[in-house]
Amino acid sequence: MSSAPLYALVLAGGAGTRFWPASRGTRPKQLLALGGEEPLLLRTIRRVLPLLSGWDRVMVASGTHLAAPTASMLVELPPENLLLEPTPRNTAPCIGWAALRVVRRDPDAIVMVLPSDHHVGDEGRFRDVVTKAVASAADGVITTIGIRPTHAETGYGYIEISEPATGDEALAVRRFVEKPDRARAEAFVAGGRHLWNAGMFFFRASEMLRAIDAHVPELGAGLRAIEEGARAGSEDEAVLRVFPSLPAVSIDRGVMEHVAPLAVVPGDFGWNDVGSWQSAWELALKDEHGNAAPPGAVLLDARNNEIVDLRSSPNKRVIALVGVDDLVVVETDDALLVVPRSRSQDVKDVVAALKERGDGGLT
Amino acid sequence: MSSAPLYALVLAGGAGTRFWPASRGTRPKQLLALGGEEPLLLRTIRRVLPLLSGWDRVMVASGTHLAAPTASMLVELPPENLLLEPTPRNTAPCIGWAALRVVRRDPDAIVMVLPSDHHVGDEGRFRDVVTKAVASAADGVITTIGIRPTHAETGYGYIEISEPATGDEALAVRRFVEKPDRARAEAFVAGGRHLWNAGMFFFRASEMLRAIDAHVPELGAGLRAIEEGARAGSEDEAVLRVFPSLPAVSIDRGVMEHVAPLAVVPGDFGWNDVGSWQSAWELALKDEHGNAAPPGAVLLDARNNEIVDLRSSPNKRVIALVGVDDLVVVETDDALLVVPRSRSQDVKDVVAALKERGDGGLT
Repeated sequence: MSSAPLYALVLAGGAGTRFWPASRGTRPKQLLALGGEEPLLLRTIRRVLPLLSGWDRVMVASGTHLAAPTASMLVELPPENLLLEPTPRNTAPCIGWAALRVVRRDPDAIVMVLPSDHHVGDEGRFRDVVTKAVASAADGVITTIGIRPTHAETGYGYIEISEPATGDEALAVRRFVEKPDRARAEAFVAGGRHLWNAGMFFFRASEMLRAIDAHVPELGAGLRAIEEGARAGSEDEAVLRVFPSLPAVSIDRGVMEHVAPLAVVPGDFGWNDVGSWQSAWELALKDEHGNAAPPGAVLLDARNNEIVDLRSSPNKRVIALVGVDDLVVVETDDALLVVPRSRSQDVKDVVAALKERGDGGLT
Repeated sequence: MSSAPLYALVLAGGAGTRFWPASRGTRPKQLLALGGEEPLLLRTIRRVLPLLSGWDRVMVASGTHLAAPTASMLVELPPENLLLEPTPRNTAPCIGWAALRVVRRDPDAIVMVLPSDHHVGDEGRFRDVVTKAVASAADGVITTIGIRPTHAETGYGYIEISEPATGDEALAVRRFVEKPDRARAEAFVAGGRHLWNAGMFFFRASEMLRAIDAHVPELGAGLRAIEEGARAGSEDEAVLRVFPSLPAVSIDRGVMEHVAPLAVVPGDFGWNDVGSWQSAWELALKDEHGNAAPPGAVLLDARNNEIVDLRSSPNKRVIALVGVDDLVVVETDDALLVVPRSRSQDVKDVVAALKERGDGGLT
């Protein structure tokens, strides 16, 4: 492994409506403990901390509207390591901004970019794969991790390689492929030359800034304006001024689809994007009847249900399910959701209906 | 109609576990607005008020543990007309006590005894039937109302008459029949000589006291002890002392099964005993998809559900059901129940489970 300083940049600005009513505008998915004991964001950081020299090498990118709940969850994070975008501009601008910050501290530093809201089943294997990706990045090659697909998923982007990936060494990426239709997804899984794009990237910070200059020059110019502001002692002011005008482009489309060489390390470590209440149930600890439920719930002749109780009331209270199977039941102080697990994806329709009728405050 | 003073005695001491979590030890079914806008107890009184000279002719029997919620619901009831049993002794003792009270005020008064927790669809027809029963009682005959059965119900007692009842004139009762099995219930419905016993009774108060003396002498003696206490100015003390030793017997078994002559007026007035959440859904106002739900509920692809929200929080809140049919969902401050309508009867098992594990406070 390289001896260059290693940083983790965790992208924690996501909104997300699929976990309503647990997730809200100011309490998005990454701040929830879905499928585990800790909030996904905190778990994401703890998962890579053994590879870092400490919390000072952790950077978290989020939005100003999430500053308070994010900071209060990450008490060990140095405040200056929380990058707050004044307005959401997708992933490329905040990754570029973080790269600026890192280069300023350590010109040859390596950065790993991680989504904040995924689940990893085998954290040891995950760190092994990350270590390989970091080594590849240390060689000057922008690197990603590709998840070996377990089914013909149409909801993810894919990373195409030249030959079926059998080991876990870094391979050359042929191209990025956007979300495919069912037939193509099935062909991808059968062919063995396509991996899921899980949004994890590894690079020397200086290399990323060069790639941005080359492929998204408008962003490169904006980042230089921020850097000038920082040198003049007013980075916050510069960010506030410059950010709204930056192109809202993802790192995938802005940089990864154009950069070469680009490497991918294939990985199998029980990855799950926690995309719906269905995924949360799959990941949750369940009783012998398949129920994931808070202690004290009364479950009579009920199987394979997911019950989530996020009410803040200190009173003694109980949730009782009788004679129902395969339901998701979520309680918060101001909302209750009942939906079959198989219809979890339709939760976003509730959020849309609430906004439509002027109840955006409940979303 | 007789010119004798007419009193209504409403029996409101019931506990009931079938409407958990809406119903509780101190908030039983009769205090809930099930299938309507008003609590069943209040509706029961308003239904017969047009036949009475006023609230001073209303007596309500309940238990001391229900004194506060009952009194606060019935602000127009004279406090002395709320008869509080210090300990539950079934219906005969409190009916006897009420008869004592009434005779003391009006020796020739007529009393109608009504359960407090039933629903009547056609209140005008109901009052017509009651008027006939009162006239029969004024003739000195203890009288009941029999509901023409609409199906082979095994959960009710039946009143047998000699010939099929076609009109609504008072008929002689042949005998009371306890809850039958399915086959007998079907024969009862087919034969037309059996009516449902809805627990409504009409009598001269003095006649009831004589009947009690004749058929439940132990109760008659106890009532005389209470009357002596009352004459000495300490009725409350006498009730406290005597009540626990009174025989816990129902008026049906203690008196009605033995008394003769006994009359019944057949009735059809949309009677429903509101026996479960299923009945509550049947009685409730429903939208075009068969959902009975509070205003503001979000119902997407959901049909024939009953949603009851009894939470006291003043916050804006919402209940959302997506893709579910035929469910009962009940929310209170300290409990949530989800059960298919067809399993409503199993709600009592939740109450049993909570008591079993020491959570009787939630029941």
